[in-house]
Amino acid sequence: MTKKLIAGLLIMCATIIAYAKQPAVYPVNWWAGMQTNKLQLLLKSDDAAFSKGKIDVNYKGIQVLGTHRFENGKYLAMDIEIAPDAKPGNVDFIHTINGKKSHIYWPLKARTGQPGRTFAQGVSSADMIYFMLPDRFSNGDTTNDRIKGYRDQSLDRSDYYARHGGDFQGVINHLDYFQELGATAIWMTPVMENDMPSRTEHGYAITNPYQIDQRYGGNEGYKILSDSLHKRGMKLVQDAVYNHTGTWHFIVQDLPSADWLNQWPTFTGTSAREQALFDPHASAMDKRRMTDGWFVKEMPDWNQRNPYVANFIIQNAIWYIEEFGVDAVRIDTYMYNDQEFGNICNAALLKEYPQLAIFGEVLVQNTPNQVYFVQNNINTPFKSNLPGVLDFQALFNGIVPALTQELGWNTGVIQLYNVLAYDFLYKDPTKNVLLLDNHDLNRFFSVVKEDVAKQKMAYTWLLTSRGIPQLYYGSEVLMKGETKPDGLVRLDFPGGWKNDPRNAFTGAGMSEAEIEVQQLVKKLGTYRKNSSALKFGQLMQFAPQDGLYVYFRYNNDQTVMCVMNTSKVSRKIDFNYFNERTAGFSAATNIITGDNIKLDGNTEIPAMQSWVFEMKIE
Amino acid sequence: MTKKLIAGLLIMCATIIAYAKQPAVYPVNWWAGMQTNKLQLLLKSDDAAFSKGKIDVNYKGIQVLGTHRFENGKYLAMDIEIAPDAKPGNVDFIHTINGKKSHIYWPLKARTGQPGRTFAQGVSSADMIYFMLPDRFSNGDTTNDRIKGYRDQSLDRSDYYARHGGDFQGVINHLDYFQELGATAIWMTPVMENDMPSRTEHGYAITNPYQIDQRYGGNEGYKILSDSLHKRGMKLVQDAVYNHTGTWHFIVQDLPSADWLNQWPTFTGTSAREQALFDPHASAMDKRRMTDGWFVKEMPDWNQRNPYVANFIIQNAIWYIEEFGVDAVRIDTYMYNDQEFGNICNAALLKEYPQLAIFGEVLVQNTPNQVYFVQNNINTPFKSNLPGVLDFQALFNGIVPALTQELGWNTGVIQLYNVLAYDFLYKDPTKNVLLLDNHDLNRFFSVVKEDVAKQKMAYTWLLTSRGIPQLYYGSEVLMKGETKPDGLVRLDFPGGWKNDPRNAFTGAGMSEAEIEVQQLVKKLGTYRKNSSALKFGQLMQFAPQDGLYVYFRYNNDQTVMCVMNTSKVSRKIDFNYFNERTAGFSAATNIITGDNIKLDGNTEIPAMQSWVFEMKIE
Repeated sequence: MTKKLIAGLLIMCATIIAYAKQPAVYPVNWWAGMQTNKLQLLLKSDDAAFSKGKIDVNYKGIQVLGTHRFENGKYLAMDIEIAPDAKPGNVDFIHTINGKKSHIYWPLKARTGQPGRTFAQGVSSADMIYFMLPDRFSNGDTTNDRIKGYRDQSLDRSDYYARHGGDFQGVINHLDYFQELGATAIWMTPVMENDMPSRTEHGYAITNPYQIDQRYGGNEGYKILSDSLHKRGMKLVQDAVYNHTGTWHFIVQDLPSADWLNQWPTFTGTSAREQALFDPHASAMDKRRMTDGWFVKEMPDWNQRNPYVANFIIQNAIWYIEEFGVDAVRIDTYMYNDQEFGNICNAALLKEYPQLAIFGEVLVQNTPNQVYFVQNNINTPFKSNLPGVLDFQALFNGIVPALTQELGWNTGVIQLYNVLAYDFLYKDPTKNVLLLDNHDLNRFFSVVKEDVAKQKMAYTWLLTSRGIPQLYYGSEVLMKGETKPDGLVRLDFPGGWKNDPRNAFTGAGMSEAEIEVQQLVKKLGTYRKNSSALKFGQLMQFAPQDGLYVYFRYNNDQTVMCVMNTSKVSRKIDFNYFNERTAGFSAATNIITGDNIKLDGNTEIPAMQSWVFEMKIE
Repeated sequence: MTKKLIAGLLIMCATIIAYAKQPAVYPVNWWAGMQTNKLQLLLKSDDAAFSKGKIDVNYKGIQVLGTHRFENGKYLAMDIEIAPDAKPGNVDFIHTINGKKSHIYWPLKARTGQPGRTFAQGVSSADMIYFMLPDRFSNGDTTNDRIKGYRDQSLDRSDYYARHGGDFQGVINHLDYFQELGATAIWMTPVMENDMPSRTEHGYAITNPYQIDQRYGGNEGYKILSDSLHKRGMKLVQDAVYNHTGTWHFIVQDLPSADWLNQWPTFTGTSAREQALFDPHASAMDKRRMTDGWFVKEMPDWNQRNPYVANFIIQNAIWYIEEFGVDAVRIDTYMYNDQEFGNICNAALLKEYPQLAIFGEVLVQNTPNQVYFVQNNINTPFKSNLPGVLDFQALFNGIVPALTQELGWNTGVIQLYNVLAYDFLYKDPTKNVLLLDNHDLNRFFSVVKEDVAKQKMAYTWLLTSRGIPQLYYGSEVLMKGETKPDGLVRLDFPGGWKNDPRNAFTGAGMSEAEIEVQQLVKKLGTYRKNSSALKFGQLMQFAPQDGLYVYFRYNNDQTVMCVMNTSKVSRKIDFNYFNERTAGFSAATNIITGDNIKLDGNTEIPAMQSWVFEMKIE
């Protein structure tokens, strides 16, 4: 062939390929028979003139309602309606430009979960959530530790910011372990693709929300994990990030228009002063800096007031619940979202999945600040519809001061009593998620200065108070660490990697104290699973006196009495004093020790212990 | 005369006197033409058979609706109705027992204040309240220092728990002083008779609520004080104590029935855990201990759920407002009252006096706890109707941390910003009373470790933020002291007694710093009197940055910019950053220094200073 001929063929091939490569469509598919049947598809082509074309559809039950162009001609937004009786199949959209037609095929699938679907079940106070960074829990499949083409090619367990290799298979391998602890649900930091050059261990810089990170097992692996959980009656909590995204997100790299992001003349971080959102005296400046400022430089801030952005995020959220069988959604950095958007998004998810549980991260210092961002009993111009929050107040202003402050009139365990009294501000505080620590906080064992007795008291509270308890991986075996730097609270779970010298699954190499605390969690967690009072019962608490805090969980069938002695001396328990709840009972079983006691007033609880009694008649 | 005759005459006289001495009636009088025209009179006789009698009335426009007997036969409660057209006069009640009739006369007066009455005017954010212990401010009349017959005959200025001799005349003598400070209202600790054997300096152990303590000047003296204030356009705030009373109260000494007090088998103090009242998880035990427990042993706790007790207290409250021309009521230990009673009492007072201001003492540690006891935006089973509170949160969690904590992300002046953001919880936070200190708290100058610059910043805030500022006597001249014991924060005002070596009225013997702070208060207080923005304007606050806190008070006529630099370095003020409020202005006057500045961005405020600018166009 002559050079000229070769060149001609190459041009022809390139032209054919260009035409053959169909635009990407988001959501990448949908399902027939969904409640959410009006969609706004975002089409992305490589052709800068693409949006000048016209779109028709050739599929029974699908109607194109309209299209919208952006500054960037590669994108087109297309509003469609899917008729309730539309059948699954490959939808045929026809794009016409300069008289040339091309087909864009888009799958309308049959719903995966029906009939007998076991997802979008929600989590409730009957559940216990085990939370982990999937990169740091267990490496079940070494073949996916490095994935070709990803920007982050690190793999070094000695570097707490490099990849460590943990994955879904590691989680699947230890489902028995979660169940032994009493956990009924797992939550992992975001599992969506994080194709960032570094710091990918946490997962919050999503670059493709339709692709599960292949280092964990990809979309298929996530489905297997979800199915494995559901087979055991367990649940899957998805970590959702609406506020921001990774710099290398395909949309950020090639924006439809500048107003898809909150733009500032120079980088402007969020003020992180959530007060401006509820303060009746706030300036517009402070409101804007709070909501539109970026979380960090590497995570551009979506402009959620742009309805195209809102649709893109919301449809993705519905998509992954349906695609992977998610049961609950934990929303990252909830207070940094545009709050109107948050309400719209929550309502859309609950419309499609009425049983779904949703709880947000609102990392603030005081109860009113937290309460504002969740369904509450306060009349405000803006009312949040978020059902629950991670209850950082019960942590910071509750169990932490209870176990670390010197006892005083307003210090120590009175704080824990006080913070639960604030439940009058919440619509439903039982939808809040209780925690002792997480990936952004000091490990609780470090907070209590490695005091094993205090760690036990904390877990006893966590598993017996109101709300949904959340365990952070490894704290049950006394993993410690403080957040400066945060990598130190994200270390590997012992035994998660082959040949680990210590193994918390088998107990090999573990200290007596570590096993003791793990056993306590197992015992109480297992008891909790079968305790209607702890799962669904009411709470009654008595004002602490000299560090002795007594509360009850109870219903018509069962009464559980919890006694927490935070003082430095042993304390007599006067069962008569609590006769609003003890009347009618004559004895009790100590759930931890199995001991039987009579309610005769001769029971003394040693200093720095917590007891859980099931009341009975003898 | 023979001995026999003398004895016979004595018996006859005694009999005549016994019959002639009419029972006491409470309220001791009423007025024709009041809104409150259904009363429950409490009659107290010396005769244990008194209540067996029958009561009739012989007075046009007065009707006896019914009577009620108690265990103690000396008492009778009588429900009457006063017709709107009943004329003033001496009402003639006829008591008939065993066929014997006796008259009980009861004055129905003409209303004192009408027409042109200047009382029950209320106080608002346009006012400034000067608060003092009348025994400790100034002795204007040495003839009443000791009153014969009173149990407490102490008089010793060297003993901070003895009487010191201060009185109404001392207050009247210094009305000019209050006005120079900008004060428009005075509030004294309770002025009702405290005929207790000791610790009568504070006034909270009332023994006769129809008698003003004679050591202050008695009922007549109080009227003179009230008239003197009103003549100057000033107002009178009465300190009201509904929750408890002094052991030597005539009713406590001879109870109508045991259920007039909250009775316990042995002395039981209040738990002082107000949480039980709003906690949805509270035990009945904790609610009861909070409300029905006694404040202290010497102050028996009224059972306000007893309707006779409630009527007795409420009618007395209306009585003293009418009798003495009170403009506002400060309610002591508000959270210890039965809250239903509190609502009934507030409603009764506001029905009679719609302009009356009412604010309560709710001495708690956190905003939600405080908010519960005042009109708020929270939906709760019980809703308080109390219009305002002493704003201890703006103190404890606002100005104190702003001036005493090391600057940090959540410490220092950010706390002051945060606590005002909580205004979204109040129905009307401008009805709250701001304070730096009082008779139960450490003097502010001691709180800031005698730092004059901080004291000035605190006063600058007090007089420019939202709400009603309250000054505690003497703190404006740097009186100091801590509450252990509380006598140390109740020392005499310098110059209040003849021959005092130091005189804060004249400046004699006062230090430069003392005069400087007093001058600051005078300057700002006087400016405030004429500033519509400070009196009635809205507040806009900007989130503090590195210790620089900027807020505005503004309305259509005036914009006042307040800058508080709590950092350790001087800070540039970027007026552009605040253009939501500075736009349209080109210059400003510094209210304290009189300096004129241009809004050109070259203004630096030194470390630990507060500036108040009135914005203008030049």
